Amino acid sequence: METKIILDTIWVVLAAMLVFFMNTGFAMVESGFARAKNCVNILSKNFIVFAVSSLGFLILGWGLMWGDGNGFIGLKGLFFLNGADNSPATGDAYRGVYSAISWASVPLMAKFFFQLVFCGTAGTIVSGAVAERVKYLAFIVFSFIMATIIYPIVGHWIWGGGWLSQLGMFDFAGSTTVHSVGGWAALAGAMILGPRFGKYSDGGKINPIPGHNLTIATLGAFVLWLGWFGFNPGSTMAADPHAISHILMTTNTGAIAGTLSSAIVSWLLLGKPDLGMTINGCLAGLVAITAGCAFVSVSSALIIGLIGGALVVFSVIGFDRLKIDDPVGAISVHLINGIFGTIAVGLFAQDNITGVATGNGLFFGGGFTLLGAQIAGILATGVFVFSISSITWLILKYTIGIRVSLHEEIQGLDIGEHGNMAYPEFLSRKPVFSALGQNGNGESIAVAPSPKRAFEGGK
Amino acid sequence: METKIILDTIWVVLAAMLVFFMNTGFAMVESGFARAKNCVNILSKNFIVFAVSSLGFLILGWGLMWGDGNGFIGLKGLFFLNGADNSPATGDAYRGVYSAISWASVPLMAKFFFQLVFCGTAGTIVSGAVAERVKYLAFIVFSFIMATIIYPIVGHWIWGGGWLSQLGMFDFAGSTTVHSVGGWAALAGAMILGPRFGKYSDGGKINPIPGHNLTIATLGAFVLWLGWFGFNPGSTMAADPHAISHILMTTNTGAIAGTLSSAIVSWLLLGKPDLGMTINGCLAGLVAITAGCAFVSVSSALIIGLIGGALVVFSVIGFDRLKIDDPVGAISVHLINGIFGTIAVGLFAQDNITGVATGNGLFFGGGFTLLGAQIAGILATGVFVFSISSITWLILKYTIGIRVSLHEEIQGLDIGEHGNMAYPEFLSRKPVFSALGQNGNGESIAVAPSPKRAFEGGK
Amino acid sequence: METKIILDTIWVVLAAMLVFFMNTGFAMVESGFARAKNCVNILSKNFIVFAVSSLGFLILGWGLMWGDGNGFIGLKGLFFLNGADNSPATGDAYRGVYSAISWASVPLMAKFFFQLVFCGTAGTIVSGAVAERVKYLAFIVFSFIMATIIYPIVGHWIWGGGWLSQLGMFDFAGSTTVHSVGGWAALAGAMILGPRFGKYSDGGKINPIPGHNLTIATLGAFVLWLGWFGFNPGSTMAADPHAISHILMTTNTGAIAGTLSSAIVSWLLLGKPDLGMTINGCLAGLVAITAGCAFVSVSSALIIGLIGGALVVFSVIGFDRLKIDDPVGAISVHLINGIFGTIAVGLFAQDNITGVATGNGLFFGGGFTLLGAQIAGILATGVFVFSISSITWLILKYTIGIRVSLHEEIQGLDIGEHGNMAYPEFLSRKPVFSALGQNGNGESIAVAPSPKRAFEGGK
Repeated sequence: METKIILDTIWVVLAAMLVFFMNTGFAMVESGFARAKNCVNILSKNFIVFAVSSLGFLILGWGLMWGDGNGFIGLKGLFFLNGADNSPATGDAYRGVYSAISWASVPLMAKFFFQLVFCGTAGTIVSGAVAERVKYLAFIVFSFIMATIIYPIVGHWIWGGGWLSQLGMFDFAGSTTVHSVGGWAALAGAMILGPRFGKYSDGGKINPIPGHNLTIATLGAFVLWLGWFGFNPGSTMAADPHAISHILMTTNTGAIAGTLSSAIVSWLLLGKPDLGMTINGCLAGLVAITAGCAFVSVSSALIIGLIGGALVVFSVIGFDRLKIDDPVGAISVHLINGIFGTIAVGLFAQDNITGVATGNGLFFGGGFTLLGAQIAGILATGVFVFSISSITWLILKYTIGIRVSLHEEIQGLDIGEHGNMAYPEFLSRKPVFSALGQNGNGESIAVAPSPKRAFEGGK
Repeated sequence: METKIILDTIWVVLAAMLVFFMNTGFAMVESGFARAKNCVNILSKNFIVFAVSSLGFLILGWGLMWGDGNGFIGLKGLFFLNGADNSPATGDAYRGVYSAISWASVPLMAKFFFQLVFCGTAGTIVSGAVAERVKYLAFIVFSFIMATIIYPIVGHWIWGGGWLSQLGMFDFAGSTTVHSVGGWAALAGAMILGPRFGKYSDGGKINPIPGHNLTIATLGAFVLWLGWFGFNPGSTMAADPHAISHILMTTNTGAIAGTLSSAIVSWLLLGKPDLGMTINGCLAGLVAITAGCAFVSVSSALIIGLIGGALVVFSVIGFDRLKIDDPVGAISVHLINGIFGTIAVGLFAQDNITGVATGNGLFFGGGFTLLGAQIAGILATGVFVFSISSITWLILKYTIGIRVSLHEEIQGLDIGEHGNMAYPEFLSRKPVFSALGQNGNGESIAVAPSPKRAFEGGK
Repeated sequence: METKIILDTIWVVLAAMLVFFMNTGFAMVESGFARAKNCVNILSKNFIVFAVSSLGFLILGWGLMWGDGNGFIGLKGLFFLNGADNSPATGDAYRGVYSAISWASVPLMAKFFFQLVFCGTAGTIVSGAVAERVKYLAFIVFSFIMATIIYPIVGHWIWGGGWLSQLGMFDFAGSTTVHSVGGWAALAGAMILGPRFGKYSDGGKINPIPGHNLTIATLGAFVLWLGWFGFNPGSTMAADPHAISHILMTTNTGAIAGTLSSAIVSWLLLGKPDLGMTINGCLAGLVAITAGCAFVSVSSALIIGLIGGALVVFSVIGFDRLKIDDPVGAISVHLINGIFGTIAVGLFAQDNITGVATGNGLFFGGGFTLLGAQIAGILATGVFVFSISSITWLILKYTIGIRVSLHEEIQGLDIGEHGNMAYPEFLSRKPVFSALGQNGNGESIAVAPSPKRAFEGGK
């Protein structure tokens, strides 16, 4: 028994560290996909969001999510991890207030840290979609509410023994619980903020705003891929060799399938294999396999990843047509593929493939039972998270404000929000208006102060 | 027994993740050592190569390498991992078709993933040597053949119970099996592609083409160094504490010795301690110790690393004199030191130092037996891989083509192959001709479109 | 027993790898916080310092630190790890010469590697404080002496069974043993070297010299944060699930508290939430919790981190007022918070919180006993390391020289010391004098050669 606790703890804490490292991946992907003038702001958001999430999840989030309560929220051991939690793996009966996670043998603090890094992921997804225009303070406050209330409540429904889990919904590592939750909040934020200045011209033209550093974005994608090997296989929360090995393979297969299909689709659709699309295709495949990684075969993972990688290309184009401006494609990656991945469980699941009794999905003769529960989970999550996020963003809008001034947006948030420049020495090609074309030159020089002056003022 | 499987699985999957992370290291080292105008292409190659390798190794490569068969190829369980494989560590007799790897207790999927990341490494080595001129599609096709056929066949010979292992050749973690295989394929590619435009002037002058981002290259080197702690100690494929600790030490010692000797040699030879050489010296030391990390002492590892680090400096200079253009030094690192490291086993091996009966090497009184087998392995691998790679590159050359047009090469592959720019905002010092000198200026401006125009055309 | 050795070894070697990875973090933070013209030099220093440390610690450092001896130094098994060391975890009595670390069950080479990465950390701390003006060779020699003599002697006092441990000083993972030791050496170096040219004007004005790449600096901070999860929880050197989980939580809590408080303090003090300060605040929180991570509660960790994050902001400003020029804030992070973290043990410790009998700190009713021992340790370490470091720097100054010429400093150390440029293609905004203001423009162009000429000369 003692050995099991040690084995599980080694596995869980190392997996948690890999998931923690995903913060790095998000920071690099998002800053690489944005413009240099907003880079410090994006880095700052991604750096502080885990701190804010850690605090919020410690204060209340963990309790709402994992505390014993009713089908909707946890009610016991709410604040500061203050409930009892003995380890049932010692053979004793459970005496504690976090019974939904009592099956895990590891110490309470390891449970907390593992769950915390998932909570942090949901918050960081929002960051990319609202990038290049959101106020730093507004983002911090939203992230705090996300970690303290929004994420934990859905988490309670699906993982904390709440009504969706009782309904028979399955989401192994969080296509819905983490990625869609982040995605819905991101969608609400992007819609309420509105697009970046210059993104959509009056005539309906979509102006591409290329990322400033694809090296860093690629680095970030690799780090996320690595982190996902903690995210999915680690969600066993136990050192079960067969489950871990299976999930590792489905996860990697989802990633490579998404990479390949997005490269091919963008090659066919855009004429060339766009690197940004390939990166997002990989992430899309990973998000799509996250719900089902423990429930589907490697072959099914291949199909799920292929679909996910294609979906992301069409989705990125689609959101641009809808004039919902998402600078890094976060909504396409996390929301669209989070939804798809959750549905995919209802289609591709095979009962007991790693020891979980999911029943079979539609394509394996299981009928619509599982699929129905999955769709219910998607809808409930969407309605709840989109509503509460919208309300939160709107309250913030009419109190502290959520969008920087046009002057600051044009000048770059780095100077306005932080008084820093990411690359004070490198000369830029009029970065401010690099993608505006028609109305760029004359005006820009009038509006933006010289980088030197601006910087000295800020520091 | 069950505990052993758990322990081994934790160790093997975590080591595999570290080796996977080496993809990041290669991507960063290679793109940092190349020019900014080709950066997206290099990143794309390094990003997709693992996807392509994963697919190829899953479809057929694993079966050819590990399936039971004859001394030359595997013949059972060929496709999609479809053979049986019980775990002999449960005490039962082995009933499966992958008997050469039956000694490992971990589940089949963990075996596959661990072997896959090694296969991916071989493919990614090629990427650097053919950089800045190879067609994206040609590289993808070559990588697929590498992972599906070339690497697995040599792998079968050395690790899969084939004729070289029967001959008594030892290559613990793959100086030959991974690094030389990648290196021979890289050499064939670099020779058939020919040098980059402007690298060698008519008068025999060698024009240095400096890398565009040594920060990223250094980052990559650190990540590779870290990844090697999975590559070498992980090749135990079992959580054997003494072997792991020993191999960790020999590996690190090889790395630091290569770092120090390349820094010193470049200091003496070039007048200053060149950072690029120091990085390649570290990698050279790592490649050189890879074959013998489990068979030699820490002191021997120090000597092997010192030689490896010096070798790489002379080798880089030598290949330039031969007008074989290898933008990142991949051939010097992986082929030359892969060969040297394999020979070093024949010289420095000490029987049973971590429990493997290698016999002693020449310097430890073992005579020429082991050394002879090592040299046979090097020659056989070289003849086979260089031939089949050359044939493959030539077939690709006369079908889909392997080299981009001169116009595209001058303009940069990022625009021609991907329609992206890595750093669209940063102004460059005429990057295209930065190292050409005599024929640079006038012509360049005529040939290359202005960055702005080029970018808008590409995206 | 055997299983315990395996479990402990997996944990210790993986934790050691994470700590090794901190070299990457330091390299990225330091180069990002410095100017582009000195970037290669900083990368080179951070790359070679681990090689130099590894060699020095192998040759003698380990023996001085861990060998049996008197209260001041180790005297047995001094050179090249040549002493006996059986594993007491097998149940036998200890027969070896490294008895102070005999409680750890892992093989000697794992002990060595784990201790080595800590030694390397101390060396790399110095690098940042002396950046942008120190001679490469002088830094290498100093690092060698650091790893061979200075760090091991203090290590012997505190961890190797020496007089400070006998006095009852507690420093779980090295706020003093690693961070302050590095910090005192850094302070001595920064003072003896003097400030960078142009940092302090004659009129007493402090000229900010902004870092050239905050993306890379942020990446580095994340990597350090990740590495600290090996540094602190790994310092159990045993796979103790409760201790690991507790330490992981206190460590993360220290980091997030430091992040938040430095952001808030810089927001209040400087008007905006400076990213550089936020990063240093995170690192400050991590350094501050390092001594007490196993001895204090999560709530105490929160307070310690909050203080650490605030301290670093005031300290950075303070050292600038004292005209001690520390380009990256290393002294504020590692020395000031190393001292504070060690004191914090004396204030916040709770007996046996993870099984170590520290007694209680002042705030938990333990009186001044523990606090007194902590302060004694801080003073002894400070006097010893600052003295011996100063003497070493001074000897180097009057022999090989420690500071590059003014010409080289203005031109950038990359060309002078290495013949490289980090970013030869990116155009810079007169990087050489970017922060000089009054005397910059005219003179600079006269002194510094054009980048193109300089580079061709160097390569």
